[in-house]
Amino acid sequence: MVVNKLCNFINDSTIMPHHRFIHFPLITFVNASFNQVSNWDNAVPVRPHWRLWWNPEPGAEIGCDAGTYALDPGHMVLVPPYVRITHRLHQPVWSLALHVEVNEPVDPGLDRVFYPELPEDMVERLQQLNERIPQGFTFTQDKNHGAWLHLFLGEIFCRALQLLPSEIWSVPARDPRVDDAVATIHSAVDTTLSNTGLARQANLSTNAFIRLFSQNMGVPPQVYMQNVRLDKAARLLQQSDESIDIVAESCGFCDRNYLSKLFKRRFGVGPARYRRQMS
Amino acid sequence: MVVNKLCNFINDSTIMPHHRFIHFPLITFVNASFNQVSNWDNAVPVRPHWRLWWNPEPGAEIGCDAGTYALDPGHMVLVPPYVRITHRLHQPVWSLALHVEVNEPVDPGLDRVFYPELPEDMVERLQQLNERIPQGFTFTQDKNHGAWLHLFLGEIFCRALQLLPSEIWSVPARDPRVDDAVATIHSAVDTTLSNTGLARQANLSTNAFIRLFSQNMGVPPQVYMQNVRLDKAARLLQQSDESIDIVAESCGFCDRNYLSKLFKRRFGVGPARYRRQMS
Repeated sequence: MVVNKLCNFINDSTIMPHHRFIHFPLITFVNASFNQVSNWDNAVPVRPHWRLWWNPEPGAEIGCDAGTYALDPGHMVLVPPYVRITHRLHQPVWSLALHVEVNEPVDPGLDRVFYPELPEDMVERLQQLNERIPQGFTFTQDKNHGAWLHLFLGEIFCRALQLLPSEIWSVPARDPRVDDAVATIHSAVDTTLSNTGLARQANLSTNAFIRLFSQNMGVPPQVYMQNVRLDKAARLLQQSDESIDIVAESCGFCDRNYLSKLFKRRFGVGPARYRRQMS
Repeated sequence: MVVNKLCNFINDSTIMPHHRFIHFPLITFVNASFNQVSNWDNAVPVRPHWRLWWNPEPGAEIGCDAGTYALDPGHMVLVPPYVRITHRLHQPVWSLALHVEVNEPVDPGLDRVFYPELPEDMVERLQQLNERIPQGFTFTQDKNHGAWLHLFLGEIFCRALQLLPSEIWSVPARDPRVDDAVATIHSAVDTTLSNTGLARQANLSTNAFIRLFSQNMGVPPQVYMQNVRLDKAARLLQQSDESIDIVAESCGFCDRNYLSKLFKRRFGVGPARYRRQMS
């Protein structure tokens, strides 16, 4: 029963492939905080969703393989899904951090963060945060955040993504049979589907199906399936407070030890730390 | 099988009551169009979601019980869920129309449209639509709309809602037992739950439960349940192209005639017309 509730709670359609209709929902906040941070020493988990940082004052920086970017009021750092980052703090600073699922697929080869310069009117709107929102606010702790803040952050985030180069949204076309297999996998996250069964659905031999899938998706079907389950576990850890045992079970892992081992490989930290860490 | 797909496709969690976490998703586009309209004579369906109109040129107006509002580049008309409107066209005009589910409950007593004056920078951003988007664009017909448009409209819509008086988001507190019953109803949209069963879950006598529910929700449980099913049918009609028979079945109606009769009472038009009509 609890497991079912969790499944409803997380909207699996956010990761469905293109349909003939528009994508919906557009964005889903996983976490949002505006806090004074004084300690950024820990390893930063890899996340399956977008992250945005904006600080009203200098004193912190975020790095990836491509370089290091100083946070200040005139810039944002935007981190695409699965990009590995480091962060460093020179002094305690106030920091806005958004974790957001975006229902637009991005170029899977992206391996860098973005550091757009903000238009003047956007900086002005962001400065209003300091005036309007309660200091030390986090969504996950505060029920009384009010609709305006939710809408304000939605506006800011949608606008921030428009500052990025449009090429990041160009996703290579996929074979429709692979699209169907992906949809099947997402519609049954907690069950293990065999390559043979998926191949039969695609009207292909098992070997031909595995080859086609790997070419289109970059990983073989069984690895893709495991990644989908790990991503779901990551969402549940951050968006619910169900025990790690229940999260493991509801994502089709036999126990929490097995989940932990695979989880650490994908996200850089174990499930408990992934949940605890805010950035 | 088709019915199951539909159920996954529509995210029922958008209408779940407050949880201790943040609401997600924030907004979900049901339809978006930017077209030259030359015929607005039909009755306008009532819709279970928000609507926004913005026209780059004068020549059209939208009315509700409280008054009539002329569309022009400096204003928007925003229509909350379930508000009944009329519209009138004096000449063919270009018109941006957004249909959006918003995951923030509004004051259930709202019975008017809003007509905010737009800040100058917002008018400027809206004028860019004319330059950038293909004329005669609709989301439901056009797969190649591109991520930027989706994000742009998300930004505009989030910002538009912030122009409204904040009181509209103040929803009367509900008894937690009613919250639980509402959650149960939404988690089993296509099955009929008895008042006796719901009352037992709430630890109340059937009569006491019906009384408490009606006080909190404005309608008795069985009417509420039917409304939830009708709203789901409305979403499926607009967001999928499954036949009306399948929509009826997947929302727990015995046949399309029964659905049509109740549908017309709630939305002012029958299912086929509700689907066909864009505004």
